[in-house]
Amino acid sequence: MTANSTMNAFVLTGHGDLDKLVWHDDWPMPQPNVDEVLIKVFACGLNNTDVNTRSGWYSKAVTDATTGGAYEVVHEEDPTWGGGAIQFPRIQGADIVGEVVEVGANGDPALVGKRVMADCWLRDWDNTDNLESTGYFGSEADGGFAQYTKIDHRNVLPVDSQFSSAELATFSCSYTTAENLLYRAGVGEGDHVLITGASGGVGSALIQLANRRGATTIALASASKHDQMRHLNPSVLLDRSPENLAKALQASTGRTVVDVVVDIVGGDGFPALIDVIARGGRYACSGAIAGPIVDLDLRTLYLRDLSFFGCTVTATHIFGDLVSYIEKGEIQPILAAAHPLKDLHLAQQEFIDKKHAGNIVVTVDHPI
Amino acid sequence: MTANSTMNAFVLTGHGDLDKLVWHDDWPMPQPNVDEVLIKVFACGLNNTDVNTRSGWYSKAVTDATTGGAYEVVHEEDPTWGGGAIQFPRIQGADIVGEVVEVGANGDPALVGKRVMADCWLRDWDNTDNLESTGYFGSEADGGFAQYTKIDHRNVLPVDSQFSSAELATFSCSYTTAENLLYRAGVGEGDHVLITGASGGVGSALIQLANRRGATTIALASASKHDQMRHLNPSVLLDRSPENLAKALQASTGRTVVDVVVDIVGGDGFPALIDVIARGGRYACSGAIAGPIVDLDLRTLYLRDLSFFGCTVTATHIFGDLVSYIEKGEIQPILAAAHPLKDLHLAQQEFIDKKHAGNIVVTVDHPI
Repeated sequence: MTANSTMNAFVLTGHGDLDKLVWHDDWPMPQPNVDEVLIKVFACGLNNTDVNTRSGWYSKAVTDATTGGAYEVVHEEDPTWGGGAIQFPRIQGADIVGEVVEVGANGDPALVGKRVMADCWLRDWDNTDNLESTGYFGSEADGGFAQYTKIDHRNVLPVDSQFSSAELATFSCSYTTAENLLYRAGVGEGDHVLITGASGGVGSALIQLANRRGATTIALASASKHDQMRHLNPSVLLDRSPENLAKALQASTGRTVVDVVVDIVGGDGFPALIDVIARGGRYACSGAIAGPIVDLDLRTLYLRDLSFFGCTVTATHIFGDLVSYIEKGEIQPILAAAHPLKDLHLAQQEFIDKKHAGNIVVTVDHPI
Repeated sequence: MTANSTMNAFVLTGHGDLDKLVWHDDWPMPQPNVDEVLIKVFACGLNNTDVNTRSGWYSKAVTDATTGGAYEVVHEEDPTWGGGAIQFPRIQGADIVGEVVEVGANGDPALVGKRVMADCWLRDWDNTDNLESTGYFGSEADGGFAQYTKIDHRNVLPVDSQFSSAELATFSCSYTTAENLLYRAGVGEGDHVLITGASGGVGSALIQLANRRGATTIALASASKHDQMRHLNPSVLLDRSPENLAKALQASTGRTVVDVVVDIVGGDGFPALIDVIARGGRYACSGAIAGPIVDLDLRTLYLRDLSFFGCTVTATHIFGDLVSYIEKGEIQPILAAAHPLKDLHLAQQEFIDKKHAGNIVVTVDHPI
């Protein structure tokens, strides 16, 4: 329980640059309903959705935007990831780790005092197949860039782990996204999986989670990041856009094709990615940081019997699967940096600059 | 059995225009091996693969080709549907109906005398999952534009039906393609399925086969063909490219979106098709007669959790399923025209002109 009536919070006031994220030390405390828990936030990870929502990238008025840029033509009513307008003011931040301090009447009181992680997908729990009713934590409801937050009790799970809260805050959004991509693409033992943007949060998650499934992982990333990435144990590390991808694959794997491409980059490199997918292979996508509009040759799609999977809302079992992998020590956090919540501008600029490997988090102080 | 050593056949001599299809009345008879049956051809349906292979459309040197055109830059070594070069001379024609006159040692002698249809996918029957080893009847081996042909005994099934051989020859390639599209896209009871190019062979098959699955079928076709198409019983008939597709759907179905798009057209209309797929919906494609290179907005693919299925080689059970639907009278042939084999140029020009609804076949004479 907490007796406070206000808290520290970073509040998004509209679409725009970083100055739209405003610090408040007297923001009203969240009031959980009967289905919700109140969480004292210890740490919250950064991710692209927060940046894209702030900058208005999801507005299709902007086709050449890269993460964090091109918000000039974006308006207040422009859409979020789900196509609806965002309600301002909004507290962003999806990847929370914290302690449950209050449980609504419909939740399990035993959650109080537990350190938990949260599934960032806000669902209609009576009809979880209804994707239209799905919201994103920190977009359709206030999230974790604050001292306290609230969320449905069915979205949280206690985590029994030696990892610090900052380390655990690297997992939720990136790793559920990554695990869902591999699940949708049916990645299994022996598959050759090509991963783009492999140095980022989702990318480093994909390497670990695909390795866990027994796949051969081929990671594409800027050569300058390769040294930082070796401890993730990708089977092969290649430059972010090899001049001749088939040749680079042949030289490093003995095959000119892969079974699966998992892509969060898109852009001009898209056709080359599709061209190296084996007949009957799969492409899964959960982002397009190099540009969303791509040239697709339908002949490649249909004559090679390919399947494409667009992945945003994760299957409900994914979050629980992830927590079990963490508890069993099957995956490791890649904490690139941790900054105090008050330095969110700095942290997000660092995130946008993409010079890091792994995830960046903010940590939240709770002075007595 | 037949004592002839030569036969009538239309032979493709190279990539090019219709004059590359040359009539011969003294072509050598096919010699079946131990796994093959010899078939006396009664009728053979026309389809896009034959035209595309002849014109060299599968060569990616040509990006703006429409069916039957733009073969100027195509060379002998240019690829077929599967990416390999075709061997000339080649007898095309995939959709055969005929009588088995000889069975190799590994086949069932009871097939002799039976009227059969053939699955047009030539498989490595010891490893049918190996798509790399799959061939197309009339492309990687001689097909049915001739008095006789041969094919693996596992590719044929006797058909117990009152339909004429010309009628039965409308089914194989189009209907297995269509059934496979619906199978891959998981079409079921209550799904709203949008069908492009709905007046053609695959299109009219899709209407019947999706209706059979209990779907609501929304057929896009030129208004001039709507009258010919009503007996197929699409739930809704719309113009081939409505100015505002969402509005047209709302007016005719009460919903602005569909669950599944099945597309054989592609081209400039592609983005509008993708935009009306409901969150979590599916797109299946087996052709691109309006142009293969399309603009894809990856945000739509991933933010709406869409799945795309490129469909060429059918699952092995599809052909047997189709034959069972025919025998149970669940689907009807749409025979647009039947011409004698000798008039193949005329028949194929008619096919290319796309003024017909349903399928065009050639029939084969066997004078005593």
